[in-house]
Amino acid sequence: MNEFVRKFETVEQPWSQGEFENQIRAVGTERYHDKHEFHKMLHGGKLNKGQVAAWALNRYCYQEAVPRKDAALMSRVYDREFRREWIHRVHDHDGLLPEEHGGIERWLKLTDYLGLEREYVTGMRGALPVTRFAVEAYVRFVVEQPLVVAVASSLTELFAPSIHRERIAGMLANYNFVNDDVMAYFKRRLTQAPRDATFALEFIKSNARTREMQEACVAAVRFKCDVLWAQLDALHLAYVMGMIPPGAYRPE
Amino acid sequence: MNEFVRKFETVEQPWSQGEFENQIRAVGTERYHDKHEFHKMLHGGKLNKGQVAAWALNRYCYQEAVPRKDAALMSRVYDREFRREWIHRVHDHDGLLPEEHGGIERWLKLTDYLGLEREYVTGMRGALPVTRFAVEAYVRFVVEQPLVVAVASSLTELFAPSIHRERIAGMLANYNFVNDDVMAYFKRRLTQAPRDATFALEFIKSNARTREMQEACVAAVRFKCDVLWAQLDALHLAYVMGMIPPGAYRPE
Repeated sequence: MNEFVRKFETVEQPWSQGEFENQIRAVGTERYHDKHEFHKMLHGGKLNKGQVAAWALNRYCYQEAVPRKDAALMSRVYDREFRREWIHRVHDHDGLLPEEHGGIERWLKLTDYLGLEREYVTGMRGALPVTRFAVEAYVRFVVEQPLVVAVASSLTELFAPSIHRERIAGMLANYNFVNDDVMAYFKRRLTQAPRDATFALEFIKSNARTREMQEACVAAVRFKCDVLWAQLDALHLAYVMGMIPPGAYRPE
Repeated sequence: MNEFVRKFETVEQPWSQGEFENQIRAVGTERYHDKHEFHKMLHGGKLNKGQVAAWALNRYCYQEAVPRKDAALMSRVYDREFRREWIHRVHDHDGLLPEEHGGIERWLKLTDYLGLEREYVTGMRGALPVTRFAVEAYVRFVVEQPLVVAVASSLTELFAPSIHRERIAGMLANYNFVNDDVMAYFKRRLTQAPRDATFALEFIKSNARTREMQEACVAAVRFKCDVLWAQLDALHLAYVMGMIPPGAYRPE
């Protein structure tokens, strides 16, 4: 996995914090998954219910992995204040109290509404293998990379609110099989993601002090975009092009 | 990653060794990657040189990972005899002496011949992210699963010789940009794979003693088929359908 972050041969001056942030943001412009054809189809009302269900089923695997990823990251941190800040990401997904539910439960509301059995969704047997490979690569990444680089990989959250705003509007306008209630996940992320991203961005700005570390952080955001992009590629081949791999979900 | 192997709720009688082997072999019939459209195109002469180069470039990542996978597996084994048997897999790929080269060097002969720069191939920057995700999932699998299940995941080698025989004939007949010399990798595997597969098959037959373990071994072969299938899916979308992800190799 180390090879995901490429090595640089010359020692260069660190970027200023402003330039560093620009480099991070430029990755989003270049390869965040809002540029993917499948996304455009999803938001533009071009998918049928089975295709949206396939997306929600697969995307569940990503939601499911995120608190494990955050716990893995926290397991490496010796600073109590950092952990206290980071732990609310786990609460956001899992819910702090049973009645609070959290993001994963909100996601299951969406898959319920799309007609998928809960056990089928949470068992993940119908998910595309690539989805699992990609999200587990993300979990491993935060275990194996230097901590500041691991934190940087979360920074696709900088680009998330605009995609979520667009998704809520696009999906509500275009599909009669979603409603305001089942879009709750994305509404909640509109406020959660910017808070998380601000903390992570400030952390890497202060802690990536060499040019090499800064470039590794930029590469981490690129890696994370690849994780997201790969999931849409697989959905596109299977559910738009019709090449569903053996054993994967088949819409009726 | 544990979830890749599904859990079974009822305790059943173990299969006989013969039935166990049949179950393993049935996975190949159902989902080995010789059934994939991209494979049929590769062997049938339906790809151009750039598409074959994309395949060879990506498949290099798999070759590169295999000795790391085998070393990871060996690192868990307390039996010296087992390790002495298994280590020749590493030699087969890396070469025991510098002048022997081994399978990875033979693979690089193929990518040379297809016009790819060695540094570009071995740097893996142009490979599809999915290729990396899938092969690293395989490396992790042999670390995280019970040893007998980890060994079982190598058993796609049972199905390899026929695909290699078909590939050598098909590619030599159909492409003027390969020759006998660059197909050396596959020729060598015709004798290596059966030896390896026999040892691994005997090992799991003797060591998977409960039905649950046997089923986990069958699921491991299914997992490994998914690893191989996912790589061809990604190649198909990128280089047949033309949806090349950001940053990946673009044939001229």
